[in-house]
Amino acid sequence: MKTQITNTELMQMEQRERAHLINSVGGFKSVCLIGTVDEAGQTNLAIFNSIVHIGANPPLISFIMRPDSVERHTLANILNVGYYTINHLNETIYKQAHQTSARYPKEVSEFDSTGLTPEFKNDFKAPFVAESQIQLGIEFKERINLTINNTIMIIGEIKEIYFPTDCLLEDGYLDIEKAGTIACTGLDSYHLTQRLERLPYAKP
Amino acid sequence: MKTQITNTELMQMEQRERAHLINSVGGFKSVCLIGTVDEAGQTNLAIFNSIVHIGANPPLISFIMRPDSVERHTLANILNVGYYTINHLNETIYKQAHQTSARYPKEVSEFDSTGLTPEFKNDFKAPFVAESQIQLGIEFKERINLTINNTIMIIGEIKEIYFPTDCLLEDGYLDIEKAGTIACTGLDSYHLTQRLERLPYAKP
Repeated sequence: MKTQITNTELMQMEQRERAHLINSVGGFKSVCLIGTVDEAGQTNLAIFNSIVHIGANPPLISFIMRPDSVERHTLANILNVGYYTINHLNETIYKQAHQTSARYPKEVSEFDSTGLTPEFKNDFKAPFVAESQIQLGIEFKERINLTINNTIMIIGEIKEIYFPTDCLLEDGYLDIEKAGTIACTGLDSYHLTQRLERLPYAKP
Repeated sequence: MKTQITNTELMQMEQRERAHLINSVGGFKSVCLIGTVDEAGQTNLAIFNSIVHIGANPPLISFIMRPDSVERHTLANILNVGYYTINHLNETIYKQAHQTSARYPKEVSEFDSTGLTPEFKNDFKAPFVAESQIQLGIEFKERINLTINNTIMIIGEIKEIYFPTDCLLEDGYLDIEKAGTIACTGLDSYHLTQRLERLPYAKP
């Protein structure tokens, strides 16, 4: 049996309850850690579940942030330094990753408070998460202010990708399930996955 | 062992191979069917894997489309009629859903060609997918042209939600895994999920 909830009923819901529901209805989501550093060398790490593919040529990826949240250190660092990392979660680190959503003061690095390890490599100007199996180095490209609700879309270009060697297939598909990447739903639920299948390119 | 692929190497890859890789690295994705109708009553159905949450108050949801693809019927209908539906996939319908990505002519409804059932209800001005367990009725709000690569972001407001009654938890979280919703990776891989756990709100 199905229940219907209307817009009017949504707007009458208690705020936290509505947030849980609306964050659930969009389907499964990517969940990643975004690593940044400020100009003084202070690292920052924050969890995001709004990563979305923008295009492959050039390779562009985006995410959405609320300007009034703990994510503001991430935004300031991205705008000041111009680089950031996107790091996949796995079963071993999702609890620590979730903990980065707590409201730590600016002078506390979420790497330190959660025990995750900042990894600087290849002269890239932002810290990767050493415990992450798939890591992207991103160059900031564009900030779009979504005036409809004052959120911010950040678009970046993928400059480097690190992944377990045996997870790349011949046709370019990267088997992130084999790499141990997990998915999320809502604001706080984490999920392993099990492939049904890959389907061939569809023709009429 | 990890492999590194740089931006330069990415840009030298064969186009389809790069598309597979870049579509894989963002993590698990929502995959949904978007249902629309034109002013003459011709229905259209298309699969999208770029759905992203924008905000809960008001309840906003977005997706990204390429203007030069088969998705153009969807865009025209959304702009002309102002309403569309977002329908979750499950294990029973993902093959039919994938098939909607084939390039059918405008006069062919993907409902007919794939055997999925258009469901009009509650005077909503777009068809839901009857076989989908979670259905959203959306009112078009804003089109944002992403000039960086000529893709288009469509933002809409959730007007109604239909879901299996026993999947809504007391705190507002909707258990889409229990409802049978599946996830996707890359361009063509479909996945069942298995919950690890829900974590409590994080505090420092």
